Amino acid sequence: MNIVLLGSGNIATHLGRAFHGLGHRVLQVFSRNQVNAIALASLLESSPITALGDMDQTADLYILAVADHAIAHVAQQLPSSLKGIVVHCSGATDISLLSRFTAFGVIYPPQSMHKHSEVRIDQIPFGVEGNDAGTTALLLRLAQTLSSQAFLCDSRQRLALHTAAVFANNFTNALYGISYNILTAHKLSFDLLKPIIVDTALKIQHHLPHEVQTGPAVRGDYETIEKHLQFLSENPLWLKIYQQLTEEITRTKES
Amino acid sequence: MNIVLLGSGNIATHLGRAFHGLGHRVLQVFSRNQVNAIALASLLESSPITALGDMDQTADLYILAVADHAIAHVAQQLPSSLKGIVVHCSGATDISLLSRFTAFGVIYPPQSMHKHSEVRIDQIPFGVEGNDAGTTALLLRLAQTLSSQAFLCDSRQRLALHTAAVFANNFTNALYGISYNILTAHKLSFDLLKPIIVDTALKIQHHLPHEVQTGPAVRGDYETIEKHLQFLSENPLWLKIYQQLTEEITRTKES
Repeated sequence: MNIVLLGSGNIATHLGRAFHGLGHRVLQVFSRNQVNAIALASLLESSPITALGDMDQTADLYILAVADHAIAHVAQQLPSSLKGIVVHCSGATDISLLSRFTAFGVIYPPQSMHKHSEVRIDQIPFGVEGNDAGTTALLLRLAQTLSSQAFLCDSRQRLALHTAAVFANNFTNALYGISYNILTAHKLSFDLLKPIIVDTALKIQHHLPHEVQTGPAVRGDYETIEKHLQFLSENPLWLKIYQQLTEEITRTKES
Repeated sequence: MNIVLLGSGNIATHLGRAFHGLGHRVLQVFSRNQVNAIALASLLESSPITALGDMDQTADLYILAVADHAIAHVAQQLPSSLKGIVVHCSGATDISLLSRFTAFGVIYPPQSMHKHSEVRIDQIPFGVEGNDAGTTALLLRLAQTLSSQAFLCDSRQRLALHTAAVFANNFTNALYGISYNILTAHKLSFDLLKPIIVDTALKIQHHLPHEVQTGPAVRGDYETIEKHLQFLSENPLWLKIYQQLTEEITRTKES
C-alpha cells in the first residue's frame, strides 16, 4: 500500500514504523514542524512535507495521526476528491468527522504509545471502523497485519472504550496521587503502598473486579468509613471522591 | 517469647506461622470457632481455646488479630492485670483502645494477607507503635525479626496509611469495575484494558504519580471531557466520580 502519514507524534511514529516494516510504502510524512517531518520521514525512507498543498493525492491510505483537536482542521484542508481511505486514530472522535471523503474510517489503539519507547505493536489492540462494509473489511485486514489484537469497533463502542480507559488508567493514577499526598503529608513513604498497587492491578488480570473488591465499603464497615471521612474532612474534594467511590462499591455489592 | 494469639483469620495465621518459624512459642490460639482454633493451633504446635476464661495469663505478648469491630469487645474481656504486651493489628483503630493494660501497642501490616495464600512476610511493611518508649522499642525489634520493612508509625500516621491504602487499592479496584461495566455494556472485552492497567501500576514504581499523569484532564482537553460527560449522563454516580477525579487532576496540575 502507498501511505501518506499526517502527523509526526507518538502514534504517527509507531504506525509509520510498523507499516514500513511490513513493506508498505510511506510516500510522505506531513508535519507543520519541519524538523519533526524530516526526522520521521528519514526513518521511514519517505519524503517530508510541511504544507498540505504538497500532499500526494494518489495514495491508498491517509492516516490522520494528529492531536484530537487538530483532526477536523487538517481533514478540512484535504481535497474531498481523494480516492484513498482517510482514517483517524482517535478514541473520542466520531467517524462522521471524515464523512466528506469517498472512503474513510478509524484505526484506534486504546493504549498510549510513547514516541521514544519500544512498543510491541503486534500486542496492541486496534479498534477498526470503516464507512462501509468494503472499507471496514479492508481496514480490519490491514490492522490484523499489524497486530493480533485488531477488532471491529464502531464509534459508540470506541467512545465507551475511551471513557473506560480514562477510569482504568488516568483516574487510577489520580488515586495513586491522592495516596501519595496523604502519605507524604504524614511523613510516610509512598513505597509502603507500591507492592499492593501492583497486586491490585495483577488481581484483575484473572478475576472480575467485583470478585476481588476489598476494603471497608465492601465489608460494610461503617465505623472505619466514618474514621476515614473524619480524617479527610479538611479536604472536601477528597472527601467527596471517598464518599462516591464508597457508594459505587456498596451499590455494586448490592446489585 | 511466649505468645497468645487471639484470632484465627488471615493475619493471625500469617503472624502465628512467622513467629512460630522464628522459634517463639505460641502458647494458645483463641477462637470462638473451635474448628478454626484447633486447625491453627495444630499448625503452630499450640493449644486451642474457645473461652477467654481459659487464657494463659503469663504470656509475654497477646496478639489481638481479630476483626476491627471485635477488638474492643475481646480486649474488654482480658484481665487488666496482664503483664505481657497487648497489641492489635488494625489500621483504623487507635492505640488508646488498649490503654487499660500495663503495656500495649500495635503491629499493623498495611497489606491484605489471605490465609491460604503464600505471603513473603519478610517483605511486608509492619507499622509499629507502643504505649511508651520501652514497649515501642521492644515491638519494633520484634517486628524487625519478622520483616525488613518494619517501621515506627503512630496512630495518626496509621490512620493516614490506612486511608491512603483505601484510595490506592480498594478505590482503584472500584474504577476497574466501572471500566469493566462500561465495556461489557458495549460488547467489548475487559481484556482490552488489562495491559494498560498493569502499565499504570508499574509506572508509579519509579515515578511520582503526578509526573506520569495522562488523559484529557491533564491535557486540558475540554472537548473530549465534554464527550465523556455526555456519554456518562445516564449514570449520575459515574458522572460525579468522573467530574471530581477530573477536578483533582486539574488542581494537581495547577499546584
